[in-house]
Amino acid sequence: MEKEQLGTLLRDLDALKQHPDDHASTIDRMRERLAAMMNPAAGAASRSKIKDMSAEVVDNNPYSRLMALQRMGVVENYERIRDYSVAIVGIGGVGSVAAEMLTRCGIGRLLLYDYDTVELANMNRLFFRPEQVGMTKTDAAVQTLSGINPDVVLESYSLNITTVKGFETFLASLKARSSDERSTGVDLVLSCVDNYEARMVVNQACNELGQTWMESGVSEDAVSGHIQLLVPGETACFACAPPLVVASGVDERTLKREGVCAASLPTTMGVVAGLLVQNALKYLLNFGQVSPYLGYNSLKDYFPAMEMRPNPQCSNPACVQRQKEYMESKPARDAAAKAKMEAEASAENECPVHVDNEWNISVVDDDETGTSSIRNTPYILPEGLVRELPDADSYAEPAAPASSSAIDDDLEELQRQLDALNAS
Amino acid sequence: MEKEQLGTLLRDLDALKQHPDDHASTIDRMRERLAAMMNPAAGAASRSKIKDMSAEVVDNNPYSRLMALQRMGVVENYERIRDYSVAIVGIGGVGSVAAEMLTRCGIGRLLLYDYDTVELANMNRLFFRPEQVGMTKTDAAVQTLSGINPDVVLESYSLNITTVKGFETFLASLKARSSDERSTGVDLVLSCVDNYEARMVVNQACNELGQTWMESGVSEDAVSGHIQLLVPGETACFACAPPLVVASGVDERTLKREGVCAASLPTTMGVVAGLLVQNALKYLLNFGQVSPYLGYNSLKDYFPAMEMRPNPQCSNPACVQRQKEYMESKPARDAAAKAKMEAEASAENECPVHVDNEWNISVVDDDETGTSSIRNTPYILPEGLVRELPDADSYAEPAAPASSSAIDDDLEELQRQLDALNAS
Repeated sequence: MEKEQLGTLLRDLDALKQHPDDHASTIDRMRERLAAMMNPAAGAASRSKIKDMSAEVVDNNPYSRLMALQRMGVVENYERIRDYSVAIVGIGGVGSVAAEMLTRCGIGRLLLYDYDTVELANMNRLFFRPEQVGMTKTDAAVQTLSGINPDVVLESYSLNITTVKGFETFLASLKARSSDERSTGVDLVLSCVDNYEARMVVNQACNELGQTWMESGVSEDAVSGHIQLLVPGETACFACAPPLVVASGVDERTLKREGVCAASLPTTMGVVAGLLVQNALKYLLNFGQVSPYLGYNSLKDYFPAMEMRPNPQCSNPACVQRQKEYMESKPARDAAAKAKMEAEASAENECPVHVDNEWNISVVDDDETGTSSIRNTPYILPEGLVRELPDADSYAEPAAPASSSAIDDDLEELQRQLDALNAS
Repeated sequence: MEKEQLGTLLRDLDALKQHPDDHASTIDRMRERLAAMMNPAAGAASRSKIKDMSAEVVDNNPYSRLMALQRMGVVENYERIRDYSVAIVGIGGVGSVAAEMLTRCGIGRLLLYDYDTVELANMNRLFFRPEQVGMTKTDAAVQTLSGINPDVVLESYSLNITTVKGFETFLASLKARSSDERSTGVDLVLSCVDNYEARMVVNQACNELGQTWMESGVSEDAVSGHIQLLVPGETACFACAPPLVVASGVDERTLKREGVCAASLPTTMGVVAGLLVQNALKYLLNFGQVSPYLGYNSLKDYFPAMEMRPNPQCSNPACVQRQKEYMESKPARDAAAKAKMEAEASAENECPVHVDNEWNISVVDDDETGTSSIRNTPYILPEGLVRELPDADSYAEPAAPASSSAIDDDLEELQRQLDALNAS
């Protein structure tokens, strides 16, 4: 399309050269054409904003394949995605792809945070293009994302959240659309940063605000990654790792010195971004099961899963406070859950969630053993952390709920037998 | 950058209007500028070609993070990627992202096949942009990919491989750089098509040519997907599914009729593309383990794995012929494998593959139970197929290798116990 427009301009120039006498009207026409090209969102080349999401199946409906999720019985009300705001911290190899996925899904509002600029050295990951080298990552992201979907409200912050001023702006932006001091104006925060310090800052902000967030990471050798759900008070926070574990003293700057750098692959980062946003969609649109923790070992295509309970001795006071509130609200929560279950049970009698689709296509009926057999795996350390003392399992862990502890023991024993067999 | 170029053109036009006398030189300057914009790979805005991949860590080296895979001990010789050719059939939600990943990884040559044009209805998946609506998918892909990495040789074919003429061109293009009638000029074929008929055509071509390929797919409800490795004669081909399984008669065109369409998500497709290309990289660059089959169930974040042996009664004669050749070449293969193992064993004594890295970062030590415990899962049917008779397990399966069957039985028994406990 663009090439076509440039071709038309080229022909106009030829006409101008041959007939310099009526140059004024030709020049005006070319001016208009150029202006339209400079503002593609307003031009015919790009698409205009769309007021309501339509499920109509026509070639020019960008939402038809998403609204089809309702007809397929996967999502109850897809259009609710327009009501949600998601903040993405770190617009690198994972964050930029996560932002593009949410943009193409038609998320209501995206808040983007990064302090870096685009370099050619980033070109081995998806999203940024060579002609964006030198732009801030946030500016480049807004340029690309607004062209893809003008319906999404984009807010970008080119700042370092680990500085005092940066942290203040970060907190204020999360709270901006909230009327309540203790809640935020966003529905989910996705952490896509590449260092320990920034993760601790996101953790601090989310603990203070009681904000649910998801963490993601990719290993320095580029072949492993993970995502994790963090609900202040309910799950382990990023500082809840056993107190016997200390940071190994990795300095982010050492990874950037001349002659040394971490490896990265567009594949690993694309998979981690996909798993992250898929779980974000499940969380926001209320379908499937949100993974508490999911690892990705690409060398073996192995995906460890586990759950992490909060640590009552967590070093983060805001986390301990959220844990206390969570315990106190248990009776109210139980009552609400019971009421919801009863309501759903009566609703399901009227309309089953999974109906046969009309093309007679059967979806593979996966059994659950792959993930559930490893739910009981002990703590996996966050990246950048190593154990300096014996394994945390040798020490007292927070007590497991009484009802499941007997099962856990049996599972562990079975797991050991399974491991021994696999090793043989 | 592009906006800047357009702005310069606008200023040129203003100058032209004010000083129509020296129009000739202004017009020539504008012509040059337009020509450069129409061919961005050659322009200053984009990067120029790079002769040798460098591991130097500077901001303007697009390969530094990939060459770092060597220093990390993951890949022995990353630059070999430039020697490889990969064909991608179907440039849709999975194929386009796979093409971008391989392009950013610096693959030597990419062959792209699709007959479709870009529509706004494709915008809920990664890669294509609204301003490309109306272009053929192959043209749009070449436009984007050549801008990202001019080092990759791109060949595109806008054709339907399921037509007689399309199939001939497809076969000829795969063989083009080969001197031998029975081998091809490509190292791997990735099937990213969305229908049964096209998969059978790729299967036919690869069986005829003895070409290793990988198949990928995403379910019509957008929440599941899979990848599969197919080595003619050695693994099951796409037609090897038990003869008791027949196509359910899904007509690709029914998915496109007015008012009805399959759902799709950028997340599921991004994950499948990432898993596919990651396994392609493992296969080409010889690291990690290539998955014979890997499923992705996004609702539960469950990843079933399995292996499928070829069916001696396969309906595809070329498959049966490749199976025969594979059996006949077994003694030679065993001897070669033994020699290779011995060579590697002596090389490893000199230089261990996994050395400690200098930042004291420890990679999570994943255990293997997640995937290996389900290697023994029975056949999962390809998409679009349903069993019309009882499950294939009730019938004789090809015998498992004798050495592992005892272990398999024990694993199955343990798995059953584990399932029972998890269900309780």
